[in-house]
Amino acid sequence: MAIRITGTGSYIPSNIEKNEDFNQHEFLNEDGSTINHHNEVIIEKFKAITGIGERRYVENHLNTSDIAFFAAKNAIEDAQINQEEIDYIIVGHNYGDVKHNTEQSDTVPSIGSRVKHLLGIKNPKCVAYDILFGCPGWIEGVIQANAFIKSGIAKKCLVIGAETLSRVVDKHDRDSMIYSDGAGAVIVEETSKIGGILTHESATYALDEAHFIYFGKTNHPEITDQRRYIKMYGRKIYEFALNHVPAAMKSCLDKSGYEIGDLKKILIHQANEKMDEAIVQRFYKLYKMDMPKGIMPMTINKLGNSSVATVPTLYDLILKGKLEGQEINEGDLIMFASVGAGMNINAIVYKF
Amino acid sequence: MAIRITGTGSYIPSNIEKNEDFNQHEFLNEDGSTINHHNEVIIEKFKAITGIGERRYVENHLNTSDIAFFAAKNAIEDAQINQEEIDYIIVGHNYGDVKHNTEQSDTVPSIGSRVKHLLGIKNPKCVAYDILFGCPGWIEGVIQANAFIKSGIAKKCLVIGAETLSRVVDKHDRDSMIYSDGAGAVIVEETSKIGGILTHESATYALDEAHFIYFGKTNHPEITDQRRYIKMYGRKIYEFALNHVPAAMKSCLDKSGYEIGDLKKILIHQANEKMDEAIVQRFYKLYKMDMPKGIMPMTINKLGNSSVATVPTLYDLILKGKLEGQEINEGDLIMFASVGAGMNINAIVYKF
Repeated sequence: MAIRITGTGSYIPSNIEKNEDFNQHEFLNEDGSTINHHNEVIIEKFKAITGIGERRYVENHLNTSDIAFFAAKNAIEDAQINQEEIDYIIVGHNYGDVKHNTEQSDTVPSIGSRVKHLLGIKNPKCVAYDILFGCPGWIEGVIQANAFIKSGIAKKCLVIGAETLSRVVDKHDRDSMIYSDGAGAVIVEETSKIGGILTHESATYALDEAHFIYFGKTNHPEITDQRRYIKMYGRKIYEFALNHVPAAMKSCLDKSGYEIGDLKKILIHQANEKMDEAIVQRFYKLYKMDMPKGIMPMTINKLGNSSVATVPTLYDLILKGKLEGQEINEGDLIMFASVGAGMNINAIVYKF
Repeated sequence: MAIRITGTGSYIPSNIEKNEDFNQHEFLNEDGSTINHHNEVIIEKFKAITGIGERRYVENHLNTSDIAFFAAKNAIEDAQINQEEIDYIIVGHNYGDVKHNTEQSDTVPSIGSRVKHLLGIKNPKCVAYDILFGCPGWIEGVIQANAFIKSGIAKKCLVIGAETLSRVVDKHDRDSMIYSDGAGAVIVEETSKIGGILTHESATYALDEAHFIYFGKTNHPEITDQRRYIKMYGRKIYEFALNHVPAAMKSCLDKSGYEIGDLKKILIHQANEKMDEAIVQRFYKLYKMDMPKGIMPMTINKLGNSSVATVPTLYDLILKGKLEGQEINEGDLIMFASVGAGMNINAIVYKF
């Protein structure tokens, strides 16, 4: 018996927000002071570090639960299962539905319930819930689905990662250029094949790191309302990620019994291109190796950082042949890995 | 081997909001029209149906994560475990931290990460996450902890239910009198004893029922801002609960192999006294029996409906001898049951 991903789906929002669309923004430092560069220079530097050239925003009438539904429908069709047989709907997100031009998160009912409603699933035994675990929420959802199947309480799970970060950005913060919207979904099920989910690893660093990503005020000193936005201490996160993510990935791979040379792809959370590269380089360094070319497929250049949605979307695009030069073939050993708010880290070693 | 609750804790906020404190509120119907009764009459009727005489609100400087931490600390001490041995921190809530005089939910980092930070737990392998599952979120957290222990990925879990509904109520809505604040927590662990969690049952009804509890505008027609509040269709929920909760409870008990006569206590979500009584009466009717006296301990009269917190708080109060005339003794068969936003239903049969 193996617990495998039998179907994938994603939703890529239609609105393309290009870097030049930020040319007129008034970017300020965290203390409200002016940045001593023209926006063109700020954006060029931003691009060089993050790799982000453009990102996607949902249309005004759509919310997180809608795009979660689109990705889910896709994954169900791809898995060719009867949706009434799904035992769990697990949705990783962080801000719930934040309607256009509003500031409150709407999480009652849960996004899982909304997706189940939109899918029209009748079976009450299909249990829908949401998990809040920062950007690694989708991978953690897969780990939970795996546990439910192993413990005998589920056979088929729908695991979704969906987020609309465009609704919680501070436009006076350069970091607002990082964030994007998107949704990815998979069906995880018990199969008679071999392989699938081999090992996993999860960690929460909260002693000093809990508030590295937080809900904070705008950088604009004259706006003194109560509204809060997604905020982060970029440098601290970079150092944290480099110190802890490679070791977690190594622990996950070593537990699987496979060698580093067996690994064909690493699907890492699209957080920031330079950071992702540094993590994977350091991971290989732990095995005294150089990072192989093409090991780390990237979408961040076109899709930005859509939090929980990046990894399932990347996986879906590769399997559907939509990511140039990238493929995963039967028997390939791959790794999913993520790091984000919490601070949480996780990884899965998976045999395709 | 048995998976048992080895420690309990709760936090009951210090501010008592009595029914007469609502005497001056301007209650309106959902359509904004005036209610043709004096507040004294509205409140008397409210008391007769819900059983609520007073409720608890947290002090202004406290948030959901703070009271979750208080309850957690309590449960860890009660279980006499080393907190560094906890494998999972699972927090059921619905609105995150909503600071006094603000309207946004703050859920990044997760409440679980905040609790872990406040507890000062160093071990990164202790994975902290939040689950959104309506009022049944705490019971569902226990079901997840049980699955993790069964599947071999955890030995000890901290499961918390915490909510500050006082921060999301519409004071022009009579239903605002239902809602309360509170936190309860337990340690769930693998033990060499027998008994513990025997069976569980979960369901999500989302086809027609997903939006029975929702985020809606104030009843005051002159307030036209974007702010939304916790709202519910009380009559629909009542009918739904009576139609579905007794059957779920029966299914859970029957799976355990025990008889209805073996059941010593039912700890049901403190939603509304009349509804809770009607559910339990109908549950016994399914066995052609009358509801035994004292089977259903209640706290709603003094503590109101604090969502995810009611069941663990009730359990903690009984075990600590703080609920007059109520006790649970070694070998007693008990049931936890809940119903709420989603609409979700769950139950656990537990041998003490």
